Amino acid sequence: MEKYVYLFNEGNSDMRNILGGKGANLAEMTNIGLPVPFGFTISTQACNDYYKAGKKISDTVEQQILVALEQLEEKTGKKLGDVTNPLLVSVRSGSVFSMPGMMDTVLNLGMNDETVKAVARLTNNERFAYDSYRRFIQMFSNVVLGIDLFYFEQFLEETREKKGYKVDPELTAEDWQEVIAGYKAIVKRQKKIEFPQNPQEQLFLAIRAVFDSWNNQRAIVYRRIHKIPDSLGTAVNVQSMVFGNMGNDSGTGVAFTRNPSTGEHQLYGEYLMNAQGEDVVAGIRTPEAIHVLEKEMPDVYKKLLATCQLLEKHYQDMQDIEFTIERGELFILQTRNGKRTAQAAVQIGVDMVREGIIDKETAILRVDPEQLNQLLHRRIDQTAKRVPLTKGLPASPGAATGAVVFDADEAEQLGKEGKKVILVRPETTPDDIHGIVAAEAVVTSRGGMTSHAAVVARGMGKACICGCESLKIDLKNKLFTVGDTVVKYGDIITIDGSTGEIMLGGVAMIEPQLSEEFKLLLSWADQVREIGVRANADNPVDARKAFEFGAGGIGLCRTEHMFMDPKRIPIVQSMILAENYEDRTVFLDQLLIMQQGDFEGIFEAMEGHPVTIRLLDPPMHEFLPDKEELLVEVTKLQLTAPDSPELAEKERLLKKVNQLSEFNPMLGHRGCRLGIIYPEIYEMQVRAIINAAVKVTEKGIPVKPEIMIPLVGHVNELKRMRQLVEETAEQVMSATGVYFDYLVGTMIEVPRAALTADRIAEQADFFSFGTNDLTQTTFGFSRDDAEGKFLQTYIEQKVLPENPFAILDREGVGKLIEMGVTLGRKTKSNLKTGICGEHGGEKSSIEFCYLAGLDYVSCSPYRVPLARLAAAQATIQHRGSIVEAVR
Amino acid sequence: MEKYVYLFNEGNSDMRNILGGKGANLAEMTNIGLPVPFGFTISTQACNDYYKAGKKISDTVEQQILVALEQLEEKTGKKLGDVTNPLLVSVRSGSVFSMPGMMDTVLNLGMNDETVKAVARLTNNERFAYDSYRRFIQMFSNVVLGIDLFYFEQFLEETREKKGYKVDPELTAEDWQEVIAGYKAIVKRQKKIEFPQNPQEQLFLAIRAVFDSWNNQRAIVYRRIHKIPDSLGTAVNVQSMVFGNMGNDSGTGVAFTRNPSTGEHQLYGEYLMNAQGEDVVAGIRTPEAIHVLEKEMPDVYKKLLATCQLLEKHYQDMQDIEFTIERGELFILQTRNGKRTAQAAVQIGVDMVREGIIDKETAILRVDPEQLNQLLHRRIDQTAKRVPLTKGLPASPGAATGAVVFDADEAEQLGKEGKKVILVRPETTPDDIHGIVAAEAVVTSRGGMTSHAAVVARGMGKACICGCESLKIDLKNKLFTVGDTVVKYGDIITIDGSTGEIMLGGVAMIEPQLSEEFKLLLSWADQVREIGVRANADNPVDARKAFEFGAGGIGLCRTEHMFMDPKRIPIVQSMILAENYEDRTVFLDQLLIMQQGDFEGIFEAMEGHPVTIRLLDPPMHEFLPDKEELLVEVTKLQLTAPDSPELAEKERLLKKVNQLSEFNPMLGHRGCRLGIIYPEIYEMQVRAIINAAVKVTEKGIPVKPEIMIPLVGHVNELKRMRQLVEETAEQVMSATGVYFDYLVGTMIEVPRAALTADRIAEQADFFSFGTNDLTQTTFGFSRDDAEGKFLQTYIEQKVLPENPFAILDREGVGKLIEMGVTLGRKTKSNLKTGICGEHGGEKSSIEFCYLAGLDYVSCSPYRVPLARLAAAQATIQHRGSIVEAVR
Repeated sequence: MEKYVYLFNEGNSDMRNILGGKGANLAEMTNIGLPVPFGFTISTQACNDYYKAGKKISDTVEQQILVALEQLEEKTGKKLGDVTNPLLVSVRSGSVFSMPGMMDTVLNLGMNDETVKAVARLTNNERFAYDSYRRFIQMFSNVVLGIDLFYFEQFLEETREKKGYKVDPELTAEDWQEVIAGYKAIVKRQKKIEFPQNPQEQLFLAIRAVFDSWNNQRAIVYRRIHKIPDSLGTAVNVQSMVFGNMGNDSGTGVAFTRNPSTGEHQLYGEYLMNAQGEDVVAGIRTPEAIHVLEKEMPDVYKKLLATCQLLEKHYQDMQDIEFTIERGELFILQTRNGKRTAQAAVQIGVDMVREGIIDKETAILRVDPEQLNQLLHRRIDQTAKRVPLTKGLPASPGAATGAVVFDADEAEQLGKEGKKVILVRPETTPDDIHGIVAAEAVVTSRGGMTSHAAVVARGMGKACICGCESLKIDLKNKLFTVGDTVVKYGDIITIDGSTGEIMLGGVAMIEPQLSEEFKLLLSWADQVREIGVRANADNPVDARKAFEFGAGGIGLCRTEHMFMDPKRIPIVQSMILAENYEDRTVFLDQLLIMQQGDFEGIFEAMEGHPVTIRLLDPPMHEFLPDKEELLVEVTKLQLTAPDSPELAEKERLLKKVNQLSEFNPMLGHRGCRLGIIYPEIYEMQVRAIINAAVKVTEKGIPVKPEIMIPLVGHVNELKRMRQLVEETAEQVMSATGVYFDYLVGTMIEVPRAALTADRIAEQADFFSFGTNDLTQTTFGFSRDDAEGKFLQTYIEQKVLPENPFAILDREGVGKLIEMGVTLGRKTKSNLKTGICGEHGGEKSSIEFCYLAGLDYVSCSPYRVPLARLAAAQATIQHRGSIVEAVR
Repeated sequence: MEKYVYLFNEGNSDMRNILGGKGANLAEMTNIGLPVPFGFTISTQACNDYYKAGKKISDTVEQQILVALEQLEEKTGKKLGDVTNPLLVSVRSGSVFSMPGMMDTVLNLGMNDETVKAVARLTNNERFAYDSYRRFIQMFSNVVLGIDLFYFEQFLEETREKKGYKVDPELTAEDWQEVIAGYKAIVKRQKKIEFPQNPQEQLFLAIRAVFDSWNNQRAIVYRRIHKIPDSLGTAVNVQSMVFGNMGNDSGTGVAFTRNPSTGEHQLYGEYLMNAQGEDVVAGIRTPEAIHVLEKEMPDVYKKLLATCQLLEKHYQDMQDIEFTIERGELFILQTRNGKRTAQAAVQIGVDMVREGIIDKETAILRVDPEQLNQLLHRRIDQTAKRVPLTKGLPASPGAATGAVVFDADEAEQLGKEGKKVILVRPETTPDDIHGIVAAEAVVTSRGGMTSHAAVVARGMGKACICGCESLKIDLKNKLFTVGDTVVKYGDIITIDGSTGEIMLGGVAMIEPQLSEEFKLLLSWADQVREIGVRANADNPVDARKAFEFGAGGIGLCRTEHMFMDPKRIPIVQSMILAENYEDRTVFLDQLLIMQQGDFEGIFEAMEGHPVTIRLLDPPMHEFLPDKEELLVEVTKLQLTAPDSPELAEKERLLKKVNQLSEFNPMLGHRGCRLGIIYPEIYEMQVRAIINAAVKVTEKGIPVKPEIMIPLVGHVNELKRMRQLVEETAEQVMSATGVYFDYLVGTMIEVPRAALTADRIAEQADFFSFGTNDLTQTTFGFSRDDAEGKFLQTYIEQKVLPENPFAILDREGVGKLIEMGVTLGRKTKSNLKTGICGEHGGEKSSIEFCYLAGLDYVSCSPYRVPLARLAAAQATIQHRGSIVEAVR
């Protein structure tokens, strides 16, 4: 005969599928000798059979429940419905996968008009007994009988008012008896039945209700969302009740085996005597710190400590434990791996390795890389109160407090005076860079996660909020409004770039911590990981930061960011507006010197590690003034100053801007398409790179330049650009007599490049997958448009499982990457491969990159540590399975 | 011993690789008994050996040449250098692939101071003999000795002047002797040698020169461009000379075995007595029509006729024959398949089948589908003189003459008055549709091949030229200028939409001809082809045209074109500007009725053939006024009428336009992304389709609607939209009680759709590859930007082999299509697949579609006939190889 019902001592943690998560856990704790209130679990199979039989509990199951109940009664020495020593139980659902709050629970089952008296007698607390009984009626009536809680709450409120009470604790035992009578009347009115007095009837009704709750509406929706099969069914746990509110020798509390905030190795937690869990939550009395218990109840404390040690050792992780003390006896109700801050996660992981509890790889797996972000940016103290004024896009993590300014020059001015400012703009342009440098953080009302402000701020590791549309900026009057709130120039605000929230005034902050333990954990990660980590950096400062954070090279140096320096942008504009090749070269020569200096600094910072430099990528019009602003200016001048030289000048500029403007800039004249039409620009850049490498080599510092041609879609594009690079490099090297190795490769960022990677590899030493653009072209949507218009809805409505710009889309984009790697290596087995899109700093994407066999990932300097950790985790989890995954 | 030299009677047409094209052809003609001047061919292998040996003719080759020469002398009864009956020969290159004009030729070789006298004697024409000799010196000196022609031309001119002559024919035999002396002096001065008098020395020098010309600069470049391997080498043909200028019993001419213009089955051509080929070209005398020869030289004519019949029968195709008559004797110098007009190609193909010369499949293969375009659009008479004023993009084929108008209303007005007008606009918008309908053709100065004007005109089969940037339009003064030319309102112009040329005034036209032979040929094609042909049509008129042209269904009905009707656009705008769902449905209900009417018409026109209807695709802002124009208006009003209600209204509109505007509209909120965010719009469209289908079914006409969801990238998008379609259809059908089958499918037009086609096929009954967008996203460039900015250069500089928007890119886009088909059929073996991009009407792309195993192609109604033919050709050429090609 199949076994449907398991006493807690008959199961273990491997029996989740049969006992559900909670049941398996209760069994496990029971087996390792913890004082768990005894009980039994009705298996998920019983639930499935119940449904198969048309919602009928079979005789076999019923029989097994009754047998288990007898054994429970024997073990506890109590009996269900007994009028001298009644057994009270809880009946709870427990499915294979946690579905918090989705299904039903009944506490205090076994209460009736007779047993309540026994409870009152036994606890010597009439008020407690009747209060418990009325809670049971309320819960049972709602969960099992399906009566709306509203009726009970309303009746209780009326009673309180009638008696002139404000809160429930004012009610006496007699008052509660009145309430019970009222509750019973409600049941009779609503369901035309007497409230069931037979505890066995109560039990079976409750079990049935838990089975039924598997298919309530919210559980069905939850399972659909979380992709949990409907066929699993739920188990039912029947457990004897214990009470922390049976007097001053009773209590309830929560204990962490280590400090979840700092990771310190000492018992942490709090408790409340003569109370139940819900009293702690209600916050009416202030709980005591756990170490006070040592003085109050030394034996219990000692037992708790031992239990905690046992549990931590058993689960090999920091535990979050719920306990109840009933008349001086300790019961453990639940244990689970404790949630912790990033700092604690690192500390605990490293400590446990030192203590020999876990090995290094386990420690590495225990820390969530995303959480590490906390440690690398200043952040708002979690304990501080925050009242957000409004919310925008969380464009760059970190928090900052400062005075509001609306102008880059003012930001710079105040910055020089040592004031902390936050630059608030409708959007930023290259002209604002000095203001961003000077500011603590940037807020814009327009633009998305890839807007100028966002990209620049992330690169600098500054907090940034973008596209905060509720923020109406009035530049003329130097203020912004959100609804009725007016924030003026100089007012202090605080922003949280990790959530997008803006708050008025200052909020307490926590500075970033780079503890020794953190460094140690990362060094272990470096030993383990089989995939390199580089950083995206566009200038010497960022390169040094990246190197400090452990980057093994620069994976992406975007040369256009060098163009955007406010001192350089006029030269860039002159170069673009030049009417012919000769005029253009004059300005290119000036830019050459500037870029060369940047490259020298970057090469020096990287001390011989590889530096991948991408030649100019964005379309030319990005460096010119905004077309619409210009159009408005010209229109105004035409009406007000039709003969002014200013108008003529602006009209000329507008004409050029119009010429260069594009319908779809993302798909326009950019990347290597610039290099093919204006080879002189790429040539200048290559010359600057090679010149710089020569200079640095001459200083005795090794260099490894990797010159990257963007946006290649056809091998012929790369072939031409490679030839240009080689000819230019050869010229410089033979002129200076300084020779060194360099690579020429390409970004794989349009689908055609991945599809024809075998051809492209003929001309490439390396591939770097530009997954930002590759995601845009593979999906056929531009990030700026999608995020503002439909992507949010897509994610909310589960049309897409997640934002493909945050987490790499393995099914589509990933397939192209796999093709690119496989085809590329078919042509050139030693082809170097990496990824330099923003995905390079995201853990699931890093895992994919490892599986796809890439040589490295590259990400923002501030994400390098987490990428190192994520890379190690991927290696540990998938070691040896790369070949299969990539086919 | 290897054979290097072949007499003409030793080779045949299969020996191209050894003898080159010309040599193989001369051998073939000799073998079938034609009177070809005899000679021999030195093989390509001899050329390659010549280079391998460091430019040295080996003894073996030399020996074989001398033997062949002896045999030639024997056959002709003449001898090289003989002073009584000298042999004169031509020495010409002849490579495996034709490289016209790339390599060298020497005529009249064998002339010297002695043989010239013999020639004079034999021809009884001293003047002819010395003229021939001086021509030989000039040609030999230039080609073999490398002396610039300039010296000879200058000397000849001086001589003419000195003698007071105007043209060469005035020179006497004595004059030519003087010239010869002068020429020899030039050779001596330039090369320090006497002009070679030994004919054998002349021969070997000339052979050497031909070998050398294989590697001259222009031949190398030509081979690179045409991808001809350098290793092939050239053959050398040595052939005895014949002369058509030996008196009035000599002559030269060209004959076509059938009329190359009409295809009529009768000898066609012209000839000139006492002349050489170059005299015909010089145009000093007017040639006679070939039939005159019948009277002048009946025997020769009879022989020519017999030869022509023999040649046509032998080559089984219409021949273009060069002949010379030397003293009453006919010689054939060359024959090749004759070029012909589309009309002739069709006529000849059909006639030859009827005559039993070729089979139907051969006839099908003989007609170039591209050429058929000529027959389907009115065109400019090729014999008419055309002086283009300027040139734009050839956006829609056909030709038209009319009066210039600059405004759609004027076009409509004049059109109603029966005037033919050409609408000239900077660009067109949906507001101009009535003007385009009324006009003969459209010209725009802005916009590319996919601009509004281009798409609409192609759909209507009207000629269109776009992006004609040299055309400066002055709308205020109603004129346009090109350079200094001013064209005013009402002036007559003619445009050729196939070339992009604009001409002043009228030019003679030819109306499209749909002969019985053409229809017959297409009916043969339909019997053969294994891939369907559908048409893209957006309204009942186009659908009827498509059906008439033989379309087996509608492959793409773009519902947005129905929105763009000027009567509807205000309703569409109101619908878009609606602030909420309720307001929007009011306007949707109005659109429903209009769309339903269109669908009814289309279903009726197609008489039960499938009709694929794509739901709304373009982004909303495309239906609203232009943002920049609005911005200018608002700016002006702000200055001139700041309190006007007009300003308030325009500002409101501008705000909405700004809200809806996108950075990259091509990658924006369009396609099914609209359907997911505004399901009410798609629901309206589905309702209109199903309502229409019900109505038409009730009339007893069968319907096969195929509802197509655009721009799907993830299966979930299609899943939702399919559900919407099915629910709406079910509602209508159950309400009306009329049931019929319909399909739901998707466009595959972003790479992700092709990459995940196995998933998407779960929800699709059919795939239609939208190769316009798929090309844009696969390459990562937008057509509008690429064509204006860099694509032209890419094609000119061979970065891309051809325009991927015209000819499907098999390597990249094709790979995605193959993946899409393979993955899709893996999930659903009966998945219907087609293509509906513009490639569907292009022959190479149709060939690819056949190889990829697609079920049908769909193209503009006017391209349906050529698609039918191209589909048949692909079938004939690749029958049985589909499976391998798709893997």
